[in-house]
Amino acid sequence: MLSWTCPAPLRDQPRVVMGHGGGGAMSAELVEQIFTPAFGGPGPSGLTDSAAVEIGGARLAFSTDSFVVRPLFFPGGSIGDLAVNGTVNDLAMSGARAAYLSCGFILEEGVAIDVVERVARAMGAAARTAGVEVVTGDTKVVESGHGDGVFINTSGIGLIPPGVDLRPERVVPGDVVIVSGAVGVHGVAIMSVREGLEFGVEIESDCAPLGGLVEAMLAVTPDLHVLRDPTRGGLAASLNEIASASGTGIVVQERAVPVPPPVANACAVLGLDPMYVANEGKLVAFVPRAHAEQVLAAMRAHPLGADAVMIGEVVDAHPGMVVARTALGGTRVVDLPLGEQLPRIC
Amino acid sequence: MLSWTCPAPLRDQPRVVMGHGGGGAMSAELVEQIFTPAFGGPGPSGLTDSAAVEIGGARLAFSTDSFVVRPLFFPGGSIGDLAVNGTVNDLAMSGARAAYLSCGFILEEGVAIDVVERVARAMGAAARTAGVEVVTGDTKVVESGHGDGVFINTSGIGLIPPGVDLRPERVVPGDVVIVSGAVGVHGVAIMSVREGLEFGVEIESDCAPLGGLVEAMLAVTPDLHVLRDPTRGGLAASLNEIASASGTGIVVQERAVPVPPPVANACAVLGLDPMYVANEGKLVAFVPRAHAEQVLAAMRAHPLGADAVMIGEVVDAHPGMVVARTALGGTRVVDLPLGEQLPRIC
Repeated sequence: MLSWTCPAPLRDQPRVVMGHGGGGAMSAELVEQIFTPAFGGPGPSGLTDSAAVEIGGARLAFSTDSFVVRPLFFPGGSIGDLAVNGTVNDLAMSGARAAYLSCGFILEEGVAIDVVERVARAMGAAARTAGVEVVTGDTKVVESGHGDGVFINTSGIGLIPPGVDLRPERVVPGDVVIVSGAVGVHGVAIMSVREGLEFGVEIESDCAPLGGLVEAMLAVTPDLHVLRDPTRGGLAASLNEIASASGTGIVVQERAVPVPPPVANACAVLGLDPMYVANEGKLVAFVPRAHAEQVLAAMRAHPLGADAVMIGEVVDAHPGMVVARTALGGTRVVDLPLGEQLPRIC
Repeated sequence: MLSWTCPAPLRDQPRVVMGHGGGGAMSAELVEQIFTPAFGGPGPSGLTDSAAVEIGGARLAFSTDSFVVRPLFFPGGSIGDLAVNGTVNDLAMSGARAAYLSCGFILEEGVAIDVVERVARAMGAAARTAGVEVVTGDTKVVESGHGDGVFINTSGIGLIPPGVDLRPERVVPGDVVIVSGAVGVHGVAIMSVREGLEFGVEIESDCAPLGGLVEAMLAVTPDLHVLRDPTRGGLAASLNEIASASGTGIVVQERAVPVPPPVANACAVLGLDPMYVANEGKLVAFVPRAHAEQVLAAMRAHPLGADAVMIGEVVDAHPGMVVARTALGGTRVVDLPLGEQLPRIC
C-alpha cells in the first residue's frame, strides 16, 4: 500500500532499482511521479497498459510492452511467445482483438544469429496462433556488455467492439471476481529454470493469447466491467490496482484461488506467495452479478478458461483495499507488492 | 550493393555484429533472411519503418523505433527528443500526422532517477511540439551491466489522408529528388560529443518533427511519390532503398547536396562521407516533375524546409543503382552502406 499512502519515497531513492520494473508500488510511483507529469498526460490513470483512442472514426486499443525475460527460452515458451502474447493480451484486456503488431529488437553484439532466428520464429508462430500480423519493425544493436542478448518491444492495435467499455472505474459493489484458471504458473516456471530448481514435475509457463477467450466472454454480454491479465506483481497487483482506481473494496476467498499443487509446493520452497507471482495466460474479470454465471459458463467452454472460477466479490467496505478470507476463517490484507519478488519474468 | 546481389552472407556470420543495427545492407539481410520469413509477412517490402494498415474503416500508419543513442544528451537534443521525433517522422513519411505514441522504457538498475526524469521531460516537450499524445507505456528494469542506462521504444499511429499513397514502387523516371535541408548534421553532432572532438563551432543535432513540413507539401498535391527520413545509413541508404524497391536509377548532383561547412570539415577530419551520415530532422522527397517547383516552394516557406533543394532525378538507366555526378564532372556509384560508420546514433 506504500505508494498510495506515503509521501514520495521515490525522491529518497536517487537511483533506479529492480523494483521499479516490478509492476508494483515502485513502478506505480515512477509512472505517477515522473512519467505522467513529464508527458503532461491525462492524469494518473492515463498511462495504462492499454489505451483506448479514437482515430479516423475508429475506436482502438493501443498498447506497448518491452520484454527482457531471462532466460530467453523456458519451459512452455520463449521471449518470442511472451512478446506476442503479452501485447495481444493487453489489447484483449481492453476488449479488443489484436489486429497488428510492431516489433522492435535491441540485440547485443555477439548474440548468435541462430538465437535471433529461433526467437523470431517463435514470434511468427505465436502471431499466427493469435491471428495477429507483425507489420512493422526495427532493429538496434548495442555493444557487447551493454545489452543482454535480446530485448523485444511489441506494440499493438486492435478494434474495440461497440458497447465495450472496460475500465476499473466501472467496478461497483456486488461485482463478481472471476479468474480464468490456475495462478502463479509462469513465474514459477521461469524461477525453476533460472535457478536450476527441480520440483519433481516440470512446470511449464501458461503463456497464451487471450483474445479468443475475451471474445467468448463478450459474446455473453458486452457489459463486463474490467479485465486484467495479472502479469508482473501477480493477482495481488491487479486486484489492488482495480480496488484503488475504483474506490471499492475487494474480498477474495483464498481457498477459491486455483493454485496447482506443483506451483504451491514450489512457492512454499521458494518463500513466494502465489498471489504475487506473474501469470502470462490468465485473466481476472470483474463481472456484474447478473451475468456472472453465464460468463463463467462461457469461459469454461473455452480451452483457456476451462478452470475458470469465482474467487471473490466487490464490497462497499474498506474502499481501495483487497482482503483475503483465509482457509482458517480469518482475514488478511493483500497489499500491493512493492517491487517484484522475481525480476525479469517477462 | 551487397545485400541485393550476393548470396546470403548472413549465414557465414554466426553472430550479431554492430552493423546489423546500422540501417544498411546488413540490417536489410537480417530483415529479409530472418524476420520476414519468420513472421510470414507480406514479403520483402512488408516490414518497413512504417506500415499502412486498414482498421475499423480508418487508414493508419503504424510505426515503431527503439532508441539506444549514446550519449543520452547531446548538442541539440537527447534520447527523449529522438524517441518522439523518430517515430513522428516515420509516420510523416507515410503522409500521416502522428496522433498517438506509446513509450516503452528499458532502464538499467542504478541509473539516476534524475536522468530518467530529464529524458521523460524532453519526451513530453517534444510530444507537445509535434502535437502528439503519449497514451500508453511500459517500464522494465534490467540488472546493472545488462543494459546501458536508458533504452526507449516508441511506437505510433496516425491517420493517412485520403489520396495519399507514398511508396517506393510509385517512383518513376523523371521524378525530381528534393532534400529538405543540410545533411549529416545529427551524426556529426553525436560523434563530436562522443569522441570529445571540437571543430571550432558546436554542431547541434537537427532533430525535429517533420509532420508539419509534410503537411505543407501534401497541401500542394497529395500526389507525392515517396518520402524518407534519411536516418541510419544517411541519404545514401535511403536513396539505395528507393532505387532498389522501385527498380529505377537515381542520379544525384553531388554539388547540390547541402552540407554545412562545419559538417564537411568534421567529416573530412573523421573520414566520413556526409552522404552516409545520419540525419534526424531532414527528409528526401521523390516528386513528379510537374509538381516539383511548387512543392519546393512550399517546403522553403516552412521553417524546417527553408534550405530545401533539388539534388537529383530518377532515370531509366542503371536500375536499382544510385550514381553521383561529382563536382569534377565524373560519376561515382553511391553504394548501400554495409553497416553503419557510427553505431548508436539513434
